[in-house]
Amino acid sequence: MSSFSADPSHPRYQSLLSRHRLEQAAKQGMLADSALIAHGRGEAYDYLIGEKTSPNALEATKNALAHLMAGKNPVISLNGNTTALAGYELMKIAEYLQCPIEVNIFYRTEQRINALFGYLDEIKQEHDINVNILGKNPDTKIPGLKGPRAKCCDEGIYSSDVILVPLEDGDRCEALVAMGKTVIVVDLNPLSRSAKMASITIVDEISRVAKSMLNLIETNDLPVIEIEFNNNKNLQASVNIIAGNYRSV
Amino acid sequence: MSSFSADPSHPRYQSLLSRHRLEQAAKQGMLADSALIAHGRGEAYDYLIGEKTSPNALEATKNALAHLMAGKNPVISLNGNTTALAGYELMKIAEYLQCPIEVNIFYRTEQRINALFGYLDEIKQEHDINVNILGKNPDTKIPGLKGPRAKCCDEGIYSSDVILVPLEDGDRCEALVAMGKTVIVVDLNPLSRSAKMASITIVDEISRVAKSMLNLIETNDLPVIEIEFNNNKNLQASVNIIAGNYRSV
Repeated sequence: MSSFSADPSHPRYQSLLSRHRLEQAAKQGMLADSALIAHGRGEAYDYLIGEKTSPNALEATKNALAHLMAGKNPVISLNGNTTALAGYELMKIAEYLQCPIEVNIFYRTEQRINALFGYLDEIKQEHDINVNILGKNPDTKIPGLKGPRAKCCDEGIYSSDVILVPLEDGDRCEALVAMGKTVIVVDLNPLSRSAKMASITIVDEISRVAKSMLNLIETNDLPVIEIEFNNNKNLQASVNIIAGNYRSV
Repeated sequence: MSSFSADPSHPRYQSLLSRHRLEQAAKQGMLADSALIAHGRGEAYDYLIGEKTSPNALEATKNALAHLMAGKNPVISLNGNTTALAGYELMKIAEYLQCPIEVNIFYRTEQRINALFGYLDEIKQEHDINVNILGKNPDTKIPGLKGPRAKCCDEGIYSSDVILVPLEDGDRCEALVAMGKTVIVVDLNPLSRSAKMASITIVDEISRVAKSMLNLIETNDLPVIEIEFNNNKNLQASVNIIAGNYRSV
């Protein structure tokens, strides 16, 4: 990654660092045309929730990790933005879970796939991470989706029972839920269709979520499944935070 | 502009068209790295205000046009995103006002300036618009700003009494206000520093604003200055719309 010179004491340092990472990823051909715009939407929502992890988001993160740990065939799906923002942490989490990563992008081109694999392989080797990265040669399809975005790997997304798909679009989220999977999404907009469709929605910024999950693992602070978890209540709590921030103007 | 194939009956057609225009502008070298991210933030806020012009935004638009009409030396400042989204309409408005356009960008490079002038000149010739476009050779500076973003033209921004600067950043907005100008900004986030600093803030999407202003002119529905206009009340009305949309979830 190229140098990034912002002052770490800047109150919006993390947000600026994420923005820089996305701009670099765009230059490296890792992203679709619309990826930077999508990141901007995320920035706006993150600003509205205060650019920090809410209590309900932390609870959802813990519950998500517990489900991933309890899964028979968990998988972590990476798109371009997720790779750029949290590729290292999510590969480390996959290594701990002994589950595969699947690079799975909406606008699939060979050039983008190669750029993403190049980026991940470099981090993997540098940090000696033992993880299987799928997605170069998808061999099956997600039922109910059309075109290149239906493609996935049988030993990855297709056969998974629990799937972490950060920053997923609504159609795919719905199709994965229809397959009977426990679908965990990370989405800063608590009112998006993905947020409403998912089994567990973490309304938080993906690099904070990934760091937080990895920290739970590394400190051996391992969560258990929360039987009473209610995703609608979880979403409502995030909606309340945003509405509250506007009321207090 | 390249072809854009979305169905005009799609409920989010305008938003998709704007996104397409920005992606094209990026490919043509008109935009800074961060421009698409900024557009995404705008998309998120526009979604929150319902992707339509609110009554208070229309009132602010009318008052803004009245001030531009009454100005001795009005000017319209264009950055990359504004040029891509509303270059035609804003040049037509400037022609009516007999005021100059000034291309004035935050991250100034010769390559970007040339791309923006090329784009505007093409529209200007195609539609036979009689307007003076400044900004290629800035000859003075906005007091209180540092670096390339301080540069401006004496016969444009510097000497203006009323300035329309859509999508302006907080620092520049503050510096222009400090020069004693009537500063009109267009900003979808009613809580941004620009929104709070400006004399008149139009909390609306720039292409809707520009179309609306041009329509007022073309139908000869010309507004007068609203003496009682209170920008804080105007901002509060937009904040209430966003908070209301969250409360009604």
